[in-house]
Amino acid sequence: MTRASTPCVESDRGPLALVCGGGSLPFVIADRVVRDGRPVVLFPIRGFADAVAVARYPHHWIALGQLGRFFRLLRSSDCRDVVMIGYVLRPPVRALRLDFGTLRLLPRLISMFRGGDDHLLSGVARLLEEQGFRLLGAHEVAPEILMPEGVMGRFAMQPRDQADTAYGFSVLTAMGPFDIGQAVIVADRHVLAIEAAEGTDQMLARVAQLRQQNRLPSQPGVGVLVKAPKPSQDHRLDLPSIGPNTVAGVVAAGLAGLAVTARSVIVVEPEAVIAAANQGRVFISGVRAND
Amino acid sequence: MTRASTPCVESDRGPLALVCGGGSLPFVIADRVVRDGRPVVLFPIRGFADAVAVARYPHHWIALGQLGRFFRLLRSSDCRDVVMIGYVLRPPVRALRLDFGTLRLLPRLISMFRGGDDHLLSGVARLLEEQGFRLLGAHEVAPEILMPEGVMGRFAMQPRDQADTAYGFSVLTAMGPFDIGQAVIVADRHVLAIEAAEGTDQMLARVAQLRQQNRLPSQPGVGVLVKAPKPSQDHRLDLPSIGPNTVAGVVAAGLAGLAVTARSVIVVEPEAVIAAANQGRVFISGVRAND
Repeated sequence: MTRASTPCVESDRGPLALVCGGGSLPFVIADRVVRDGRPVVLFPIRGFADAVAVARYPHHWIALGQLGRFFRLLRSSDCRDVVMIGYVLRPPVRALRLDFGTLRLLPRLISMFRGGDDHLLSGVARLLEEQGFRLLGAHEVAPEILMPEGVMGRFAMQPRDQADTAYGFSVLTAMGPFDIGQAVIVADRHVLAIEAAEGTDQMLARVAQLRQQNRLPSQPGVGVLVKAPKPSQDHRLDLPSIGPNTVAGVVAAGLAGLAVTARSVIVVEPEAVIAAANQGRVFISGVRAND
Repeated sequence: MTRASTPCVESDRGPLALVCGGGSLPFVIADRVVRDGRPVVLFPIRGFADAVAVARYPHHWIALGQLGRFFRLLRSSDCRDVVMIGYVLRPPVRALRLDFGTLRLLPRLISMFRGGDDHLLSGVARLLEEQGFRLLGAHEVAPEILMPEGVMGRFAMQPRDQADTAYGFSVLTAMGPFDIGQAVIVADRHVLAIEAAEGTDQMLARVAQLRQQNRLPSQPGVGVLVKAPKPSQDHRLDLPSIGPNTVAGVVAAGLAGLAVTARSVIVVEPEAVIAAANQGRVFISGVRAND
């Protein structure tokens, strides 16, 4: 995978299709790809993508469940490479609007839904490739969105934070086979919270609340949010991300900082992340996977 | 440990000391021991034990951190056997009121606090035994408080629930080495929540909220709360428990029921638990540890 370090423009494969969930990241990627000389066509997902930002690019709105329409539009737009980016909450089955192309695939989609997220996403990747498309990771077309190794901002990890970080990575590794969350909060080798369906922001809010209620054993200023991709995760589809909200959550939870695996976690709005970390006096650290 | 199946009255060892945290369970145990012919002395913990109920028994109030006073009162009351029961939130160190006997032990207490709950509790057990006392589990003096094997109430596990239960136990086993929570919620082999510092009730409330927000992949009526002691847990000190609140939480979270390891989880107010389960149409199941 040398592609991870050099942007993949390859305009001979037609415009790059960007399936856009929520947040600002899809537009960061789109601008980068256009700047590199390759046209883009956005496929914003109804209910998630930002309509005002989408209007600046060639685009076709799609709804979750409209796989038939999506494949048709990909072909008519001459797109063969597809990047999926931005958050999409895992939808309840009854909220899907199934079109005919999807109905044909329904038995397989149902079996994907019965497993965890990994199962669902890698199933989508397989379907795309069977239809002759190529799925790329957002970091393959814009490697600079990934957390680098080392420190972002003014504050660095202390030995106590390094111990908590190592402990947190062990917990995440142990949970890997179960396709659970991607984040854990550890303070003085005591696990305060583990993320599952609620997401990182809500997990951080919970720890902030437990602290207000005096229900945590650790003092304020101790503890690390540790975040990593799941071992089984397809990096083209679902890399974890941090952004200014994450840092605000770390500050509100009274932690010392946050540590993520270097080069496999996306940093959304890095300038705002650094500013929030410096103001909140917390560290942001990219740790090599085997550290 | 044949003691687990026959109550331990042994009145030749003096009155039984019952260190009482919050909830009704300490008084259920006290009544059972008195009925068996052994006197009790209660040591209710300030801020946790129910003062009205405590007044019905011989008692001495203690504060967290007053180990010196506690050991002195145990001796003057002629107690050699000690049972600790009822919930005590893990206190922030600054909330402790340390007496002289505690200060002498401070270096060891601090090192206990730096580990997880198990570490703290087993340290307390060691201290008691060094002082010549014997720590017993509540279930050793009142075995009927434990969840039996099989079903409580009118509803039974379906095959889907059995698969979710087995998956949940695997997750708990994988987390065992980290001294984390004792409970997990699984629906269609998808982990919805893992308990850490927040406790079971709050974890259930979170899943109820995620369901209201349409953020869960599973339908209402699917999913199991799975609860077990941590593998490293000293059963004399800290068995997990379920009660009517737990069942109300399972119903509110839209789950099919709850499964616990048989004979190692305490059922508080079993009649109310059964009534709540029948009314809420959820199952309560005690599963053999190796199932």
